[in-house]
Amino acid sequence: MPELRRDPIVGRWVIVATERGKRPSEYQVASVELADRGKDPFAEGNEHLTPSELYAAREPGSKPNGPGWQVRVVPNRFPALRIEGELDKEPHGIYDRMNGIGAHEVVIETPDPNMQLEQQPVEGIVRVLEAYRVRMTDLLRDSRFRYILIFKNHGRQAGASLPHPHSQLIATPVTPNHVKEKLEGGKQYFAYKDRSIYEDILRQEVREGARLVYENAGFVVFCPFASRFPFEVTVLPRRQCADYHAIQPDEMLLLADAMKITLQKLSKALNQPQYNYILHTAPARRPRYGYWATIDLDFRWHIEILPRLTLIAGFEVGSGFYINPTPPEEAAKYLREITV
Amino acid sequence: MPELRRDPIVGRWVIVATERGKRPSEYQVASVELADRGKDPFAEGNEHLTPSELYAAREPGSKPNGPGWQVRVVPNRFPALRIEGELDKEPHGIYDRMNGIGAHEVVIETPDPNMQLEQQPVEGIVRVLEAYRVRMTDLLRDSRFRYILIFKNHGRQAGASLPHPHSQLIATPVTPNHVKEKLEGGKQYFAYKDRSIYEDILRQEVREGARLVYENAGFVVFCPFASRFPFEVTVLPRRQCADYHAIQPDEMLLLADAMKITLQKLSKALNQPQYNYILHTAPARRPRYGYWATIDLDFRWHIEILPRLTLIAGFEVGSGFYINPTPPEEAAKYLREITV
Repeated sequence: MPELRRDPIVGRWVIVATERGKRPSEYQVASVELADRGKDPFAEGNEHLTPSELYAAREPGSKPNGPGWQVRVVPNRFPALRIEGELDKEPHGIYDRMNGIGAHEVVIETPDPNMQLEQQPVEGIVRVLEAYRVRMTDLLRDSRFRYILIFKNHGRQAGASLPHPHSQLIATPVTPNHVKEKLEGGKQYFAYKDRSIYEDILRQEVREGARLVYENAGFVVFCPFASRFPFEVTVLPRRQCADYHAIQPDEMLLLADAMKITLQKLSKALNQPQYNYILHTAPARRPRYGYWATIDLDFRWHIEILPRLTLIAGFEVGSGFYINPTPPEEAAKYLREITV
Repeated sequence: MPELRRDPIVGRWVIVATERGKRPSEYQVASVELADRGKDPFAEGNEHLTPSELYAAREPGSKPNGPGWQVRVVPNRFPALRIEGELDKEPHGIYDRMNGIGAHEVVIETPDPNMQLEQQPVEGIVRVLEAYRVRMTDLLRDSRFRYILIFKNHGRQAGASLPHPHSQLIATPVTPNHVKEKLEGGKQYFAYKDRSIYEDILRQEVREGARLVYENAGFVVFCPFASRFPFEVTVLPRRQCADYHAIQPDEMLLLADAMKITLQKLSKALNQPQYNYILHTAPARRPRYGYWATIDLDFRWHIEILPRLTLIAGFEVGSGFYINPTPPEEAAKYLREITV
C-alpha cells in the first residue's frame, strides 16, 4: 500500500511508494560530462576568461585574477539579475513588478576542472563553505538585498551549463516563496508548541534512526520523512541558528565532513548522479520585532540535497504534488550501508 | 534590465528576462515519439491490455472493453494510489501519514495512437473534456476524496510513459499544496478588495492585450504576467465558477475551441513541444461555511499549460525561484501571430 506523508514544515503531502521501493540500480543515471581544460573558463590559467574575482583563497604572494588559487568567486558572465541600479518597485495594473537588481556570482570550487566537491579533502570543502560565508556576509551589507540564495547545480540535467565544479549565489531584493513557506511553517509550530520544529525533527531522526544517513558532533544527515525525490537528503546543524553566515569555525569543519561523506555516499550508491543542493538560510534584512521576533528560535539553516533521478514533470511543479518511488527509509538504509 | 514579477495569486516572484527574450527557435525541442500500434495498450483493438473501462464514449451497440469507442477511461495499471480500503490517518512521532487511498485513472483521448489532442475536431476534444467531467462527478461522490487532479503529460520529458495521447486523473484524500496556495491567495484578495482576483486578472489581460493569446465568448487565453516557464499559458473561463464539473454545455464547446486553438498555436510555434497541462479546480468536499464560505466568489477553475522548453532544475523546485528567459509579452505576441 502506498502512503501519503505530510512535510511537517510546509504541510506538503507526498505519495511515497512503500510496497517495493525502486532500488538505486533501477534509476537511469545520466553521467556527468568531463571538462575540457583548454576551453574551461573556470580552470587555473584561464582566469582572463571570467570577470574580475570578488574573492579568492590564494597562495601567499599570488596575484588576483592569476593562477595560485584554491577557490575563486567571480560575477556570473550571464547574470540573471544586475548589480547596478536603484530598487524600483511599481504596480502594473493589479500586478507588481520590480527592476531586476541583484547579484549573481559563481563560486569556482577548485582550479581542477574534474575534481568533484566530495573528492576534495575536508580542508578544500571548508574553503568552499567559507567562500559562501564570506560572500554572504559581504552582500548582507547591501541594503537592497532581502535574500542570499546559495545553490549548486551538478550535471547538465541538473541545470549546470559548465562541467567544472562550481556553485552559485543569487542575491535578491525579495524572499523566494519556498523560504517564506518554511519560515511560516516553523513560526506556526513554534507558536503552537513553544519548541523549534527543527529541534523536534532532529531529535526524532536521531532516536528513530530509520532515515538517518550520517551524523557527527555538529550535524545530522537524514532522508526527510516526506521526501519529494528519491534519495533526497537534508543536512541539519545540531546548534540552533537561523543564519548560515553565523556558522562557527568548528562547525564549518564538521559541515565539510558531513558534506564530504554524504556526497561520497550518494556518488557511490547512485553512480555519480546529477544533483542540486540548496542552502536554506534566514532572510537577510529583518527587524528584531513583529513577524521576525522569534526567527532565531523557530527557523534553523540547513542544506537540502536533491539527486536528479526522476523527471521533474511540469505536473509536479504545477500541482505541488510529488510521487516518490523510493521510501526514504530504504534510501537511508542504502546510504548508511555504503562505506566511503 | 531583467525584471522581477510577482504572481498576484500565490505571491511567487519570478525573474523575467526582458532585454532580449529567447525566441521559440532558440529552444531545443525534444520531439515526441510515435506510438507502435501493435504494442500500444491504448489503441483500438488492444482493449484487453488495460483494466476494465470505467467510462467510454462509444458507438451505439458497441460492447464495453471492445472496439467502437472514441474516448475511454480505465484505471491506471500502475496506480500511485489504491482505490480499496478505509482512510487511516495517524501520527508517526511528530510526523503525519495516511494510507495511500485514492483513484488513479487514464483518459485515453482517441483510439488512434498518433492523433494529438489539438488535431482532433472540436467534437473530439469535447468528448475528452466531457470524460473529465463525468469521472470527476462520479469520484466526488466518494466521501474519502478531497481533491480530483486532472492533468496531461505530453511527451517523455514531460513525464508520459506511453506516447498514445492520454490524460490522467488522480483523486486524493488531501488537497495538493499549490491548490491550497491558490485558494488562500484568492481568499485574501477577496477579503481585501471584495472582488475576485480572477475577474481582475481577466479584465486587465483583455484590456491590456499584450499577453493575450486568444479569446472567444467563454474563455480568455493568456501568458500569465509572472510566467515561471517560457510560453506558459493560462486558460481562464469568463464565467465565475469554482468547480470544473459545473461547466455548462455551451462552455464545454468554447473550452474545446480554446484548447484546440491554443495547443495548435503552441505546436506550430514551438515545433510540437512536450508539455504538461493541469486543471485547477476547487476541492471536492467542503462545507458552505467558515473557511469555504466565499470560495464560489473568490476562486475560479482554470487550466495551466506548461511547455517543457527549459530544464526544471531541482534548484527551482527547492527554492520556488524561477528564471524565465522569454517575457510573456513576447511569447504571447508569437502565439497571437501564428495562424492556425
